[in-house]
Amino acid sequence: MSASGKLIEPRTLKGFRDYLPAQMMPRERLLETARKVYRSYGFAPIDTPALEYLEILTGKGSDETDKQLYRFQDHGGRDVGLRFDLTVPLARFAAQHIGTLGTPFKRYHMASVWRGENTQRGRYREFMQCDFDTIGTKALTADIETALVIHDLFQALHVGEFQIHLNNRQVLTGLLEKHELLEKSTAILRALDKLAKIGREKVAAEMMEAAGATAEQADQVLQLAEVTGSNDDILQHVSKLVAGNERGERGLSQLADLLSATQAAGVAAERLKLDVAIARGLDYYTGTIFETFLQAMPAIGSVCSGGRYDNLAGLFTKQELPGIGASLGLDRLLAAMEELGLLPKVHTPAEVFLPFFAADKLHEYLHLAATLRAAGLGVELYPEPKKLGQQLKYADSRGFRVAVIVGSDEFASGRCQIKELASGTSHDVAMADAAAKLKELLAVSGLRIAD
Amino acid sequence: MSASGKLIEPRTLKGFRDYLPAQMMPRERLLETARKVYRSYGFAPIDTPALEYLEILTGKGSDETDKQLYRFQDHGGRDVGLRFDLTVPLARFAAQHIGTLGTPFKRYHMASVWRGENTQRGRYREFMQCDFDTIGTKALTADIETALVIHDLFQALHVGEFQIHLNNRQVLTGLLEKHELLEKSTAILRALDKLAKIGREKVAAEMMEAAGATAEQADQVLQLAEVTGSNDDILQHVSKLVAGNERGERGLSQLADLLSATQAAGVAAERLKLDVAIARGLDYYTGTIFETFLQAMPAIGSVCSGGRYDNLAGLFTKQELPGIGASLGLDRLLAAMEELGLLPKVHTPAEVFLPFFAADKLHEYLHLAATLRAAGLGVELYPEPKKLGQQLKYADSRGFRVAVIVGSDEFASGRCQIKELASGTSHDVAMADAAAKLKELLAVSGLRIAD
Repeated sequence: MSASGKLIEPRTLKGFRDYLPAQMMPRERLLETARKVYRSYGFAPIDTPALEYLEILTGKGSDETDKQLYRFQDHGGRDVGLRFDLTVPLARFAAQHIGTLGTPFKRYHMASVWRGENTQRGRYREFMQCDFDTIGTKALTADIETALVIHDLFQALHVGEFQIHLNNRQVLTGLLEKHELLEKSTAILRALDKLAKIGREKVAAEMMEAAGATAEQADQVLQLAEVTGSNDDILQHVSKLVAGNERGERGLSQLADLLSATQAAGVAAERLKLDVAIARGLDYYTGTIFETFLQAMPAIGSVCSGGRYDNLAGLFTKQELPGIGASLGLDRLLAAMEELGLLPKVHTPAEVFLPFFAADKLHEYLHLAATLRAAGLGVELYPEPKKLGQQLKYADSRGFRVAVIVGSDEFASGRCQIKELASGTSHDVAMADAAAKLKELLAVSGLRIAD
Repeated sequence: MSASGKLIEPRTLKGFRDYLPAQMMPRERLLETARKVYRSYGFAPIDTPALEYLEILTGKGSDETDKQLYRFQDHGGRDVGLRFDLTVPLARFAAQHIGTLGTPFKRYHMASVWRGENTQRGRYREFMQCDFDTIGTKALTADIETALVIHDLFQALHVGEFQIHLNNRQVLTGLLEKHELLEKSTAILRALDKLAKIGREKVAAEMMEAAGATAEQADQVLQLAEVTGSNDDILQHVSKLVAGNERGERGLSQLADLLSATQAAGVAAERLKLDVAIARGLDYYTGTIFETFLQAMPAIGSVCSGGRYDNLAGLFTKQELPGIGASLGLDRLLAAMEELGLLPKVHTPAEVFLPFFAADKLHEYLHLAATLRAAGLGVELYPEPKKLGQQLKYADSRGFRVAVIVGSDEFASGRCQIKELASGTSHDVAMADAAAKLKELLAVSGLRIAD
């Protein structure tokens, strides 16, 4: 109780949440999978402080992020803030350490970020980002590998069919340059953004009015935004649109190279889809752009996005640091998986439940549990010799799949009952064979063995 | 650059630090190991917000933690703070969710905490805690399992010899009760605390003066604090000291039971050491108390500590929640491992380096890398076709163990050179056998295969 003797109400702040085991276990599994895939390409982990000097975080100067920043003065009167993404800390980190680390530098970073966002939109104020980036090279190999990592990641996550959408910022830029509209690109993009809402004609009209485009120029830009068909169709069509402009042609040929290289690496052709209408971060990215969609739930939006940038850390150093990276939207993906019924309702990370009901055999139970763990199984021993039925009810509520039933008689005879909790089926096996039998049953039921 | 056109100095706040790959990889390995061991006993992960209502965090009312709290007002004018440990959030969490979760509830929680501490003592203001607790049972089985988890954890961490020190709060309490000194225990403990500094006689004098103890009573308390020898010696000696007091006898018999039960579970007798002088958290813990020391570096202090408490969440709920748990001191352990030379100087999580020097064979390199990854190897492909020497220098600096050298000739002949980077030894193998040969070489060199 508090000093006043009254209980304090246990509650979390608005926009924040607790993760109970049933939510936290899939989250850990996703993080482990991402870590494994990132590592397999040589991306190394880093971490940075949750708190940074305020000037580091506000340096980028976007009004929206500035407004959402959790900021305060620390004990030393310094202005500080909680990081709102992992990109600004990466820029600061790279400026500070790239001399030591050398390039190319490939890092992943999985950590929480905080934004005082409007929670009415279903947004949380604390969420996790899982970024990976390759810094210090302009080589297309890094773009190709980024696509491969996204591919391997979603294959490993077992979330069903997915598609990686690809664009290259230079295609649109080239087209605008070709039509001498480059200086009007903000107005053009603003008009283009309304395409779905107001339709082709009104967008064309706005381009002519606000950006001084001719009807033909507006048509060309709209053709680019509306191009559909197979990847080959798109390459052909866009090739005509940008013909004669070096930038546009280079952007397009990079997209073609990316497609063929990923196929050479074993990626199925249908996994990658040219989508020259992606407008994501067109003000930030300078080359390849990625978005990733789940076939079963496209409406949730991109679950892994990124792209190439020319200069990561211009706020902090004169050294030019080009790079490319992407970010797994962990919370969005988990929400989708939950809706798709892909998350098991399990509250325990151990597979095997060991009831404790022969009160004078604690040592034997401990020994048996240790033996099963040594064989690679996760085992929870119930702590008190309560009634067996009560313990099995607990095991059910936790989501255990199997229980090893052993009482005084079984310890004496060296045999035990292995019970499949869902079906109630029991197997009588010699104690010495228990681990093997458990592994067999768990493999069939598809339940992960503790790794 | 900032709005003013000046570069912002890239730096971290005092008391905070970046983790570069060479520091972050062992950190991740430790976390993975802890996660695996905790899970194998059925402890499930949870997470709680970094930010909590200030009243939740200050509820406990320790002046020291209150002073160190990072606190501020959020966008909604709420008083909030950054968590300074994982125990207070667990208490709040348990009070809020235990009805849903049921008991016994076994959770682990690995997360950062923040304290505005004096950094002159070498302390950091952001550090990670890795706690595990069993809540809702008074059964000694939970105490035994806590010891087993600590044991398995340090076995799995490969940090050399270690010893878990055990005490039980009831032993001293029982002795004080026997001598009717219970109400003077604060004064007794304060005197006892100075034993190493001022010696036996002065402590005895202080006990007599400040706590009104007789010379004989002071001697009995000092005998308890000074008892040495084997676990059996200690059990015998202390048994005489507490004889006739129920509390003291119960505390001692629990210690004896703990020792024999862990041995039944397969723990070597020398791993556990009775240490009835442990004063850790004597004001907080009510039963078993644990500390863990590395044989090679006892001076660094306990690297995993914990104990039993009667009531976790009294500030937040009337429901009594007894429990027991311990916390791995991740940063202290890493510091010790670094000093002991147990951390490899490796900057890459991938084992295999694949130089890219036949500029027109990118597809073949990508295919080879994909094949090796599919075989379970971590492979970094250099992104640009630079000179081989330059690429191998990069591989050395990153700590790769092996490189697969393949140029146009090799792709044509279907063979490749596998080079051990430390020794320079090369092996000529068929491309199809590369994965097997690499695994063989890496197994010999003891380098972890990407798991």
